Amino acid sequence: MEVHVNQHRVNAHTVHADRARMLISCPDGPGIVAAVSRFLHEHGANIVQSDQYTMDPEGGMFFMRVEFDLPQLEASLPKLEQDFSTVAEQFRMEWRISSVSRKKKLAIFVSKEDHCLVELIWQWQAGDLDADIAMIVSNHPDMKEYVESFGIPYHHIPVTQDMKPEAERRQLEVIGSDIDVIILARYMQIISPKFIEHYRNRIINIHHSFLPAFVGGKPYAQAYNRGVKIIGATAHYVTEELDGGPIIEQDVQRVSHRDDVTELKRIGRTIERVVLARAVKWHVEDRILVHENKTVVF
Amino acid sequence: MEVHVNQHRVNAHTVHADRARMLISCPDGPGIVAAVSRFLHEHGANIVQSDQYTMDPEGGMFFMRVEFDLPQLEASLPKLEQDFSTVAEQFRMEWRISSVSRKKKLAIFVSKEDHCLVELIWQWQAGDLDADIAMIVSNHPDMKEYVESFGIPYHHIPVTQDMKPEAERRQLEVIGSDIDVIILARYMQIISPKFIEHYRNRIINIHHSFLPAFVGGKPYAQAYNRGVKIIGATAHYVTEELDGGPIIEQDVQRVSHRDDVTELKRIGRTIERVVLARAVKWHVEDRILVHENKTVVF
Amino acid sequence: MEVHVNQHRVNAHTVHADRARMLISCPDGPGIVAAVSRFLHEHGANIVQSDQYTMDPEGGMFFMRVEFDLPQLEASLPKLEQDFSTVAEQFRMEWRISSVSRKKKLAIFVSKEDHCLVELIWQWQAGDLDADIAMIVSNHPDMKEYVESFGIPYHHIPVTQDMKPEAERRQLEVIGSDIDVIILARYMQIISPKFIEHYRNRIINIHHSFLPAFVGGKPYAQAYNRGVKIIGATAHYVTEELDGGPIIEQDVQRVSHRDDVTELKRIGRTIERVVLARAVKWHVEDRILVHENKTVVF
Amino acid sequence: MEVHVNQHRVNAHTVHADRARMLISCPDGPGIVAAVSRFLHEHGANIVQSDQYTMDPEGGMFFMRVEFDLPQLEASLPKLEQDFSTVAEQFRMEWRISSVSRKKKLAIFVSKEDHCLVELIWQWQAGDLDADIAMIVSNHPDMKEYVESFGIPYHHIPVTQDMKPEAERRQLEVIGSDIDVIILARYMQIISPKFIEHYRNRIINIHHSFLPAFVGGKPYAQAYNRGVKIIGATAHYVTEELDGGPIIEQDVQRVSHRDDVTELKRIGRTIERVVLARAVKWHVEDRILVHENKTVVF
Repeated sequence: MEVHVNQHRVNAHTVHADRARMLISCPDGPGIVAAVSRFLHEHGANIVQSDQYTMDPEGGMFFMRVEFDLPQLEASLPKLEQDFSTVAEQFRMEWRISSVSRKKKLAIFVSKEDHCLVELIWQWQAGDLDADIAMIVSNHPDMKEYVESFGIPYHHIPVTQDMKPEAERRQLEVIGSDIDVIILARYMQIISPKFIEHYRNRIINIHHSFLPAFVGGKPYAQAYNRGVKIIGATAHYVTEELDGGPIIEQDVQRVSHRDDVTELKRIGRTIERVVLARAVKWHVEDRILVHENKTVVF
Repeated sequence: MEVHVNQHRVNAHTVHADRARMLISCPDGPGIVAAVSRFLHEHGANIVQSDQYTMDPEGGMFFMRVEFDLPQLEASLPKLEQDFSTVAEQFRMEWRISSVSRKKKLAIFVSKEDHCLVELIWQWQAGDLDADIAMIVSNHPDMKEYVESFGIPYHHIPVTQDMKPEAERRQLEVIGSDIDVIILARYMQIISPKFIEHYRNRIINIHHSFLPAFVGGKPYAQAYNRGVKIIGATAHYVTEELDGGPIIEQDVQRVSHRDDVTELKRIGRTIERVVLARAVKWHVEDRILVHENKTVVF
Repeated sequence: MEVHVNQHRVNAHTVHADRARMLISCPDGPGIVAAVSRFLHEHGANIVQSDQYTMDPEGGMFFMRVEFDLPQLEASLPKLEQDFSTVAEQFRMEWRISSVSRKKKLAIFVSKEDHCLVELIWQWQAGDLDADIAMIVSNHPDMKEYVESFGIPYHHIPVTQDMKPEAERRQLEVIGSDIDVIILARYMQIISPKFIEHYRNRIINIHHSFLPAFVGGKPYAQAYNRGVKIIGATAHYVTEELDGGPIIEQDVQRVSHRDDVTELKRIGRTIERVVLARAVKWHVEDRILVHENKTVVF
Repeated sequence: MEVHVNQHRVNAHTVHADRARMLISCPDGPGIVAAVSRFLHEHGANIVQSDQYTMDPEGGMFFMRVEFDLPQLEASLPKLEQDFSTVAEQFRMEWRISSVSRKKKLAIFVSKEDHCLVELIWQWQAGDLDADIAMIVSNHPDMKEYVESFGIPYHHIPVTQDMKPEAERRQLEVIGSDIDVIILARYMQIISPKFIEHYRNRIINIHHSFLPAFVGGKPYAQAYNRGVKIIGATAHYVTEELDGGPIIEQDVQRVSHRDDVTELKRIGRTIERVVLARAVKWHVEDRILVHENKTVVF
């Protein structure tokens, strides 16, 4: 039996069958905005939203996100991409275009703490997370029944110190080639550099502190011992440096001397849920550009 | 079949079998703290936490919350209460003592929007809400399967304009005499004064605006039209005045001109969830004293 | 003698002699961004920053702010403006271009409460407010010595119920034709519709509440009586409707039952200072577009 | 000539000639609250406010702050203190009582950045900081004229690497024996352990980051390079460990990729001002108890 919350709710996201998003990074220079907007206009696209940012006007990096409608997008997109490569070459752009109607596929990794997973599933059900939750991968069996009640496949892959490489091999196997982004929803295992390489800037972790304060284990205990008056959580892309990858989003809440470690954890769970859900939402809406160790979030 | 998230989790709340909380309101005057603390000490109670507040030192109201441990509480409490009535009389106190180990019983009212209900159930499962969810009452059948999957009784009582008194009569019937507090978790029907009278300062509503701004219906549309830069939610006790009862808790989040009504609702759902859950937590932990139309939250 | 704080400090704002900002509002339609960016590119301008927003893709309003560098701006601007009128006409634009190096002239109105005035003067001295404080106008003499110590002219124009029109006439006289924006920095007199008409969307008021809650007088007393858990302040353009004009910025701070009206005022003073200073900063940086009763802040 | 802002303003603090505050730290145990409140009651004192906190009910530390009115306080205080020593001894208390009417004397240390100093002086003038600013000490002459215009003595004591011990000797000399608390209002010199020893838990520093993130120099540049989405400031007591002392207060503000280091500094200045002013206010109101490396703020 499957229990579905809210199947009665129509999806909150209006379907934009002909909408696409273009992300661009390149060295700054004159005429980029003009070239891009002219290109789109001449190809019959209507710009719905456009954001841009130059890290430093003199010789810095330029970042742009354009959301546009193009009649019969699916049929027209290949030609548009082919034509755009000339513009892109001229300005040495890194770029990509994605169709809004093609939902991104998520694999969520989880250990025993379930609050971030429950939040993502709830937001997905509520129509607030415009993506497909394709599978849950866990080193524990605990959440299997819950996850499967939503019709989501659950892969229980135990991880021990000895068999970590083997576990990662199996994880990559179940993920296959179809997953767009991996969410570490309080997954308490360190990911190997080899694994990360497969999903560069496509693995989002939630760290339960206001980074770079309290890197590593037991951040709430660290925060309690340091006597901070505010605690936080940080969503970031995973890199080889532990808790050191590009920060996507952070949020905080005020605490006091009255809050012991248990209470900090309790308060923190809500911050973690909210911060991770925001980061995932922005990622699937193609709002994030990564440059070196920083993010531009449009 | 019942699907339980996290049945494996041990309850986060250490059981305090011998702990009690005393709430006091009275006209201020000299010697109250001394009298109460002396009384408790002489009766073998150890004060674990004590908060007090005087609305105005000169002739105002005095409020106090004391958390204490008393050996063999269950057996000793009747005598303690009896003896305390002498102290209480002397200072013209309104007071009550409640045992921490006796969990409060909640009836949650809900309509179609499920986010506040889902949050309360999740916090209850996570061990963060130290209460019993005794039943859900709804004017719609939608959440029945979901609620019953947790083993919680679900009473579907339709409410129409014609049969409102009859519906309230049936609601009071299913509630019985055992419920401590009623939570209106986005329950979209107005409660009659007669119903309120039964649960004076024991019905908590979540209003989806930063009260007193945007009283009444469609507050997110009102907020959008007014062009506010911050939206919020308010948990309050229900009185005869619509959205006018004593405020328990409020929280807010920044928005911008880019957020349309749909987006305001989406952002607001998380504020509503968090604010209502805090208010309910404080109520079941006996942290709230009501004086006229205001709350003292310890 | 004049006392200047921080004359030693070099101005934090790098001088951008050739930088300008263009603000555009018009009905949305295809090709606007392309037309504007192409026009600027062809006229030798380099776009440094561009923001745009469409209120509703289907037939709504379009808003754009472009910051660009144009060699020899002062000499080239008249021709640029003349040429742009053709583009503007085609899309039925309301638009204006302002040179960044031409600082806006401020007249600050104040009554007895000095905190907002002191903040604006401090930010101006610190180089954080890129504008000229041309004069202070007050219905009280109290701040005269302080203001004049910075070399700023101080006009004391008493306002009584009887002679209000006469007072406003004198105010308009001292303001002359040279002032870009009027700041009501806790100026406790209501401005007449006739006066407002002269400075439509160019009078910024700070209201000491989170509007639309607590319109009118004594908002902190109103907030105290209502028992809100958060207080705020609102900067808005002044219209004929009291405290009803387009909101520019708001901010809030958490309070508790312990805070009496005096304490709310004390906390509020810092919120007011910060919110007003932000609104003024955004106005002088041409970041605000007004549409009906709402603002778009880029 | 002296320029005084707001000399016309009556002091916002009602004079409480007979009010005192008692601060207590001791090992927890039964009967402490009862003993203290009974003692005060029997000595004719009326408790106006009482806060207490036990770090851990089982064998932890107990902290208490009592605000009380005692008729003819000045005359009665010596006897009260003498009598209380018996109670204190019984519970092994560290304690002190201070008269509210005896304002604490502040020495403010400043370097070139003036915003924190200007804020403290403004709050003091506004009647929001109930203390005496006895002197300003600076390693630069820049603020001399400004400070002296308020009638506050300004001691310019240059500090170079070579003559640091000599400079500290002169600082201690001008401070004398009368200063209660030293405020480092963006004073950019490290204080020696010997100096700290004289003012244990009585030197308050403002660090321009959300500690423990970005200890040491150039924290805004560090924050920019790490790409954090929120910046903050921290007020703490100074200990031998750089930026490692007990945290009194912190606050934060959201930033984005658009904010460069200059903008982070600008935003940060307001956070620093507000956080330091709060910490100083709490210190002079005897609201802070220090235990090991943490603060209890009542």
